[in-house]
Amino acid sequence: MFNNLRKKLSRLTPAQMIVVYYSMAVLVSVSLLSLPLAIQKGVSFTFMDALFVAVSAVSVTGLTTVNISETFTTAGSYILMFVFQFGGIGIMALGTFFWLIIGKKIGLKERQLIMADQNQTGLSGMVKMLKGILLIITIIELFGALLLGTHFLNYYPTWQEAFMHGLFLSVSATTNAGFDITGASMIPYANDYFVQIVTVMLMTLGAIGFPVLMEIKEYFIQRNNHLFRFSLFTKITTVTFLGLLIFGTFIILLLEHNHFLAGKTWHQSFFYALFQSAATRSGGLATLNINDLTESTLLVMSSLMFIGASPSSVGGGIRTTTFALNLLFLYHYARGNRSIKVFKRELTNEDVTKSLVVTTLAILICFTATVILRVTEEHELIAILFEVSSAFGTSGLSMGITPELSTIGKFVIIILMFIGRVGLVIFLLFIGGKGDKTQIHYPKEKVIIG
Amino acid sequence: MFNNLRKKLSRLTPAQMIVVYYSMAVLVSVSLLSLPLAIQKGVSFTFMDALFVAVSAVSVTGLTTVNISETFTTAGSYILMFVFQFGGIGIMALGTFFWLIIGKKIGLKERQLIMADQNQTGLSGMVKMLKGILLIITIIELFGALLLGTHFLNYYPTWQEAFMHGLFLSVSATTNAGFDITGASMIPYANDYFVQIVTVMLMTLGAIGFPVLMEIKEYFIQRNNHLFRFSLFTKITTVTFLGLLIFGTFIILLLEHNHFLAGKTWHQSFFYALFQSAATRSGGLATLNINDLTESTLLVMSSLMFIGASPSSVGGGIRTTTFALNLLFLYHYARGNRSIKVFKRELTNEDVTKSLVVTTLAILICFTATVILRVTEEHELIAILFEVSSAFGTSGLSMGITPELSTIGKFVIIILMFIGRVGLVIFLLFIGGKGDKTQIHYPKEKVIIG
Ligand SMILES: [K+]
Ligand SMILES: [K+]
Repeated sequence: MFNNLRKKLSRLTPAQMIVVYYSMAVLVSVSLLSLPLAIQKGVSFTFMDALFVAVSAVSVTGLTTVNISETFTTAGSYILMFVFQFGGIGIMALGTFFWLIIGKKIGLKERQLIMADQNQTGLSGMVKMLKGILLIITIIELFGALLLGTHFLNYYPTWQEAFMHGLFLSVSATTNAGFDITGASMIPYANDYFVQIVTVMLMTLGAIGFPVLMEIKEYFIQRNNHLFRFSLFTKITTVTFLGLLIFGTFIILLLEHNHFLAGKTWHQSFFYALFQSAATRSGGLATLNINDLTESTLLVMSSLMFIGASPSSVGGGIRTTTFALNLLFLYHYARGNRSIKVFKRELTNEDVTKSLVVTTLAILICFTATVILRVTEEHELIAILFEVSSAFGTSGLSMGITPELSTIGKFVIIILMFIGRVGLVIFLLFIGGKGDKTQIHYPKEKVIIG
Repeated sequence: MFNNLRKKLSRLTPAQMIVVYYSMAVLVSVSLLSLPLAIQKGVSFTFMDALFVAVSAVSVTGLTTVNISETFTTAGSYILMFVFQFGGIGIMALGTFFWLIIGKKIGLKERQLIMADQNQTGLSGMVKMLKGILLIITIIELFGALLLGTHFLNYYPTWQEAFMHGLFLSVSATTNAGFDITGASMIPYANDYFVQIVTVMLMTLGAIGFPVLMEIKEYFIQRNNHLFRFSLFTKITTVTFLGLLIFGTFIILLLEHNHFLAGKTWHQSFFYALFQSAATRSGGLATLNINDLTESTLLVMSSLMFIGASPSSVGGGIRTTTFALNLLFLYHYARGNRSIKVFKRELTNEDVTKSLVVTTLAILICFTATVILRVTEEHELIAILFEVSSAFGTSGLSMGITPELSTIGKFVIIILMFIGRVGLVIFLLFIGGKGDKTQIHYPKEKVIIG
């Protein structure tokens, strides 16, 4: 029977395999989170809640229908941490893995970097890659836990509590899960810039993409080798990531200047703006109550969450590269240029088309979800739009409507978290076929477009 | 001096010429509408109002900062009708003209149909085409005015008034201007199905595109010629147009069933849904108060207005063909097909790319406009989103916030009406350059997209 299953699994396309693994991870997580030892006595925790939190944790989104600290026991919190830890690592590994098998034409050097050894493609190469990801994430998390835990000795009476909070926050930030056990996200640390700087750094390391981390590692190893060249992917995604961070900070400062930030000092304002901007990449933690922001800020934050994080990272959304390619294409198209040149390289038509497809489809999906939720829920349009963007971008920020969602509403958000996490390119390949095999060709004919 | 100007004009690209002509039309219209004989005594009509109404009329959008029947004299109403009449015809002619000069590879037959005579390209061909448009529009309008005017004898005391209202409505519907002199759009005819059917037909004839009208005419002339073949453009745009009409009707029935349509008979419900659905293509007239609809209906109507009407018609938006090509491309991309086959023809890559560019750019523009208006205006998000979509789609439906817009708000809407009317393809070519002349090529490199 096991052999039979294995045979069936081996017949799946890579895209279908990813969806199967993801579904299995959700099932296991639902069971784990429903264990009696995980839930506090006398607290209501329905199957729907378990499913929602499991999908949220496996997809490291961080939206939740229940208050974590009031629902889970300490053991439950550790189980949750375990789930989103492996959710984050798994997704990062699968994303990278998927890129390797469908992107057969990527440069040998990049492939080599990620696979650790060019002769070891196949299973052993995969295992090495997985080990690499596990190692790099664990190092980052332990480093973060140490910094935060030590600092939290100022906040908590015992060192156990301090380090427990430090570890949870470090893993939650690095995997971009965005769950909190304070019961109020990062609001207790709203004036603690040290915690915020560490958290922003951890969220960024998780969301910038595994290939980028590997190349940075390689760069430091080959420090004296002047021939080292970062890949085009690393350059585009890093510049876009930083660009979005700066743009978000700037726009929040601008739009909230006379509102939430009125009367705050410049450094308070700056950190509020910076942290919330960073959180929209995918982190999902917040140092303020999202409901205190103006609707225009919420609109911009929604669009930032919709863009999301880098590919092959723990984040979701249409991804930074997709957004960058859209902008580059629009610019070059308007200029009448035939090829898109960036960083002394040319983009392939295939990639540019893919980025436009992903964006268009993502907008269609999010718009449809918004209309459905506007019918099924009693909440304001902006709260729904924000929730939809947050789920699709697996950011996990919320105006607080998650626990009040109807059953249909919860299902819609679950599906969005799933799609946002798996990624639209993989999702498209999963639902799609293998192409038209017929050799029939028709004459080409132009139509009027605009 | 005139020769000098002519020289300068002849050096402009076709796209720039269209923008120049459009701007000149607005200037002339502002002057005409500001004439003392056009404005009722003691009514405030500022320059900003004149500019807004002029842009709205030239672009046949129909949004207005003033109540037409309370601001303009009868002479003023005729002047307004004159402006949107020539606005509609001008834009239809320019759109077709532009298609002819940039779409050099279109089939000889289509070209022939539109140019009336294949040997008469150039100026004389243009004049013939313009005459053709003028003739077809005038025939439709007079026919509509006759039907409506006769019917309006039931409503108005004198035949002059009846036919004046009939003519105004007929021209307003055919050019899709959507202005009204009832002071309450089509609400007075909410239970008059005859008026509604005629109006929907007039709006549709105006918005379906000039090439479609020409091909239909040709089809009836060649009735016995079994070799007659409609162009791919006509097939795609007509099917999409009807598809959107049916989808809109269905979705309004569904979403308003328990709200606005509760307690209405099936035929009342059907006509409310049908008329409002048809109005989103570009007509902009309404048989109900838009504010009475639910937010989900308003969201769907916003997206329908955003899509807009057919190219080379009196309507705006991203256009029906653009939307259709997006959907076709997404479907075929997901299926893994390399070529997009539809109606036994294949689409060109160029057209598909163009449609994705137009959509992406339009979403960026409308989103930015929404954020700006959310900052400058005190109105609800849905009212702003609806207004932005209405302006970009030159539909002219409104939740009533137009007269209350701030100066910045009015400018934003003016720019949107302008872009929506000129069309994004032309707009892109206008702002863009003539392409990269350098021969530098870089190696191609793939990046991770999704
Ligand atoms: K998250
Ligand atoms: K209109």
